[in-house]
Amino acid sequence: MNTYCRLLRRSSTRYLLHRSNSNSQHSTQFPGFRGHFGTSRPLEQLLGDPKRTLSTVFPPLREHIGSGLTSACNVAGHTHRLPCRFFGSAPIVMQRNPKFSTINADDITKFKEILGEKNVVQDEERLLAANTDWMRKYKGSSTLVLQPRTTEEVSWILKYCNSRCLAVVPQGGNTGLVGGSVPVFDEVIITMGSMKNIISFDKVSGILVCEAGCILENLVSFLDSQGFVMPLDLGAKGSCQIGGNVSTNAGGLRFLRYGSLHGNVLGLEAVLANGTVLDMLGTLRKDNTGYDLKHLFIGSEGSLGIISKVSILVPPKLSSVNLAFLACKDYVSCQNLLLEAKRKLGEILSAFEFLDSDSMDLVLNHLEGVRNPLPPSMHNFYVLIETTGSDQSYDKEKLEAFLLRSMEGGLISDGVLAQDINQAFSFWRIREGVPEALMKAGAVYKYDLSLPVEKMYDLVEAMRIRLGPAAKVVGYGHLGDGNLHLNISLPEYDDTVLGLVEPFVYEWTSKYRGSISAEHGLGLMKANKIHYSKSPECVDLMVSIKKLLDPNGILNPYKVLPSSLTS
Amino acid sequence: MNTYCRLLRRSSTRYLLHRSNSNSQHSTQFPGFRGHFGTSRPLEQLLGDPKRTLSTVFPPLREHIGSGLTSACNVAGHTHRLPCRFFGSAPIVMQRNPKFSTINADDITKFKEILGEKNVVQDEERLLAANTDWMRKYKGSSTLVLQPRTTEEVSWILKYCNSRCLAVVPQGGNTGLVGGSVPVFDEVIITMGSMKNIISFDKVSGILVCEAGCILENLVSFLDSQGFVMPLDLGAKGSCQIGGNVSTNAGGLRFLRYGSLHGNVLGLEAVLANGTVLDMLGTLRKDNTGYDLKHLFIGSEGSLGIISKVSILVPPKLSSVNLAFLACKDYVSCQNLLLEAKRKLGEILSAFEFLDSDSMDLVLNHLEGVRNPLPPSMHNFYVLIETTGSDQSYDKEKLEAFLLRSMEGGLISDGVLAQDINQAFSFWRIREGVPEALMKAGAVYKYDLSLPVEKMYDLVEAMRIRLGPAAKVVGYGHLGDGNLHLNISLPEYDDTVLGLVEPFVYEWTSKYRGSISAEHGLGLMKANKIHYSKSPECVDLMVSIKKLLDPNGILNPYKVLPSSLTS
Repeated sequence: MNTYCRLLRRSSTRYLLHRSNSNSQHSTQFPGFRGHFGTSRPLEQLLGDPKRTLSTVFPPLREHIGSGLTSACNVAGHTHRLPCRFFGSAPIVMQRNPKFSTINADDITKFKEILGEKNVVQDEERLLAANTDWMRKYKGSSTLVLQPRTTEEVSWILKYCNSRCLAVVPQGGNTGLVGGSVPVFDEVIITMGSMKNIISFDKVSGILVCEAGCILENLVSFLDSQGFVMPLDLGAKGSCQIGGNVSTNAGGLRFLRYGSLHGNVLGLEAVLANGTVLDMLGTLRKDNTGYDLKHLFIGSEGSLGIISKVSILVPPKLSSVNLAFLACKDYVSCQNLLLEAKRKLGEILSAFEFLDSDSMDLVLNHLEGVRNPLPPSMHNFYVLIETTGSDQSYDKEKLEAFLLRSMEGGLISDGVLAQDINQAFSFWRIREGVPEALMKAGAVYKYDLSLPVEKMYDLVEAMRIRLGPAAKVVGYGHLGDGNLHLNISLPEYDDTVLGLVEPFVYEWTSKYRGSISAEHGLGLMKANKIHYSKSPECVDLMVSIKKLLDPNGILNPYKVLPSSLTS
Repeated sequence: MNTYCRLLRRSSTRYLLHRSNSNSQHSTQFPGFRGHFGTSRPLEQLLGDPKRTLSTVFPPLREHIGSGLTSACNVAGHTHRLPCRFFGSAPIVMQRNPKFSTINADDITKFKEILGEKNVVQDEERLLAANTDWMRKYKGSSTLVLQPRTTEEVSWILKYCNSRCLAVVPQGGNTGLVGGSVPVFDEVIITMGSMKNIISFDKVSGILVCEAGCILENLVSFLDSQGFVMPLDLGAKGSCQIGGNVSTNAGGLRFLRYGSLHGNVLGLEAVLANGTVLDMLGTLRKDNTGYDLKHLFIGSEGSLGIISKVSILVPPKLSSVNLAFLACKDYVSCQNLLLEAKRKLGEILSAFEFLDSDSMDLVLNHLEGVRNPLPPSMHNFYVLIETTGSDQSYDKEKLEAFLLRSMEGGLISDGVLAQDINQAFSFWRIREGVPEALMKAGAVYKYDLSLPVEKMYDLVEAMRIRLGPAAKVVGYGHLGDGNLHLNISLPEYDDTVLGLVEPFVYEWTSKYRGSISAEHGLGLMKANKIHYSKSPECVDLMVSIKKLLDPNGILNPYKVLPSSLTS
């Protein structure tokens, strides 16, 4: 009765969150609101503002090379021990594919002729930044960055590299998390950042066409001024590029509401390894004329072609946002609450996130200024429900009615509605602060998994039993998307514990037909683990398609598919 | 002021449409609500209830063979003049591919051994039904229908046929409109109707897994009992099968709201030409592990593999439906109204349909009992707006407020809100009655096109200028999806007029980067016209993929891609 009153009492004050017109204001209002991607990327918090450019973020990197990171690649010896694990992933030993040529002076001359001197980058500092991934976990040794300005230049580069058997790495904002956007050895880096034009915007249909190098945040700002939003939003938006987002099939914050890029991307232009430009840049919602080839390039991480232009369906901006922080007594209640929320909130539900009590405990113990909005007792599970709609008063009343019914029905043990922007921020801070708290607590092994919702938390419990008191196992994530962030927290990295965690975690995920990479892709990190989520027949077909589209294998080699199958 | 009052007056009575729990009741309430597919399929209305089975619909067909239809195929002579055009498409002369074998007694024995006697169909009447398409426009001369009951049987059949170089046609409900689901010559017909089991349903995540032969309406009924809906719904749902829906990437009534099957299908199981079973039957919302191969099979019309199982994301059923019938003074107002509706109605908008005054004129003149809800004057354009949401009173008020604002802003010249089910039916009857009215008015050339919304109606006007008073050119369709149904009505079919219409209509569509098949696919009818909507480079890659997956070309030959490129 007490908790029931609490919800009633707290909801008696009017609370309406308006998304502001200016994107920067929006960021101020909801700084914690954009951390979804960050949940699997704790360094982001440590490195600071995700909007910073790579060069801003990476100044101390030079000091680290050769010390914190393990040996650089040994091209001459054709052996390359990758940098040490940063968050506990096992080291990978790879061979450079000897069929690839190495850059020579003639190549450089040719590139400068076609692209112009300043778009052929050999400057050491810029090479270092482009060779190193965001997490400083992977580092290549490329000696050349090319900056095409047009599709024709991308085409020319690929045609040339293909004829010379020079391997290439397409690079967008270089914000990927699986080593997909940096060279493994000396691959030529093709950065897309100079192709940053918005080509057209159809307000009636809500269709944006732009070049691949557009930074996501710039698109968000442009659309905001037009009264629209991007159907994807993620923590890295200040640096990541739409071409990279599409190539990695980024999920992000708005996935629950707007779904996958396979549904939202209407068209692409992509350049194949041999320089052929595939014009699939449709701007139509319906087009059933032949095979829908663009889907091959969505999520193939640049290994089948380089995306040069994107056409995307964008929804109108909605004005009303409401947020509730709730407690559930068990995981079954969380599931039932999700089911009811989808049914009762239906069209306005925009986020359904959860964390367990161990996650909450970490946040309360390690992050300054964070308080439990539902004191005094700890609950087993916490859920954040966000709604986004077009009518403030209706949406608010709808959410309140839903919450009251859910409390009466016993699905919720306790709950509060954010009464203002500060409260909304503090609620999101709890959910988004989990990765940062984990980092502060010590060493952490992190896994980004998709599982059937009903099975999701079983893995957390199974892992607890397996590891015993030696490790703290926490589970949180995007319950509405079936996306679990499983984290194992330890005082320090421990190979014995890692041996208990892997391959168990992949085998368990595979057993329940889950995905070992919900949203980050395979890149270099998990290329050899693809069999945990895909059948041999599917992998064989992927390899055949790779060989069909890129017979010399020059596009982003060693990534996505096991090298043993493609080289 | 008068029209403003009208809207106010008519909306003063409470109108709430409840979707009923029972599907049959649902059909009774909204008989006109399921005619979207029918808009391009007028025979459906003439033939009667779409739920009837093919054998019920087709009894008079036997009398027609050899009379109403032109010559049957001449396999021996390797020349096949297809049946005469039914609605004005030009006749196609094709050669049977001589590399395909013909069925012999050993084959039949083998098939019976594996599939059982009764699943190897050679009965004349059933062969006739399976050889003939729904429109009675295409007719093959297959002598064999196989009815697999399991994926393993499908695999065995394809492996055998591939080894013997026997061509096959996968067939679902045989409700396609472009000749894609019937043989062209003597291809073996593989019907999927025996694979009709629902495999699982996850209520928490809303994920249905079923066999490909499930009839769409049966899935709708099952989900209705669970409180969910299919994300697609179409006029043929009483006969069509989910495997066929996915193979043709069916659009349907709920496209505006729930989007394409590329976004809703979570997983597939498909059998390749060589019998390999591809298990892509994921049930996850997020899975970024390698290339998303399932998309190759969505919309490839059975030419790359046979879909045997489907996993699909289904939304919760929403309880409140409202419908408005509106008049706009010009096409620009229709566009602006769409823009506003998407912005203001946002999350509850579920249909935005339009018809021009010539369409309305045809309906009023040729269909009994249909009245103009907005007398006395005729308007230039009419728009239907439907909302579907979870809260009846809120949704109704939201729609009313939107309509009043739109009238004040001059976007709407006049309008009425349906006050009860009968009114809702009568409004849908106007929109859905256009194809039937066109049929009654005489001969008709029909085109199902996707175009940028702002260009869509220009084609109707260009065609009017081109044809002059000799023909009546009407435009209507799914404005919200950018899908135009362009129809040219004449007293009788006229090759001179057809010569003016084609290839002009395809060239015009191509010029504005439209699609010559918005939702029906290419099948046999438009396989040779693919270049109007796809670039040579894309078609070349499609052909390469076809050859990779089906080297002998046994899967649905002569369809989708120009035979000159694949054989």
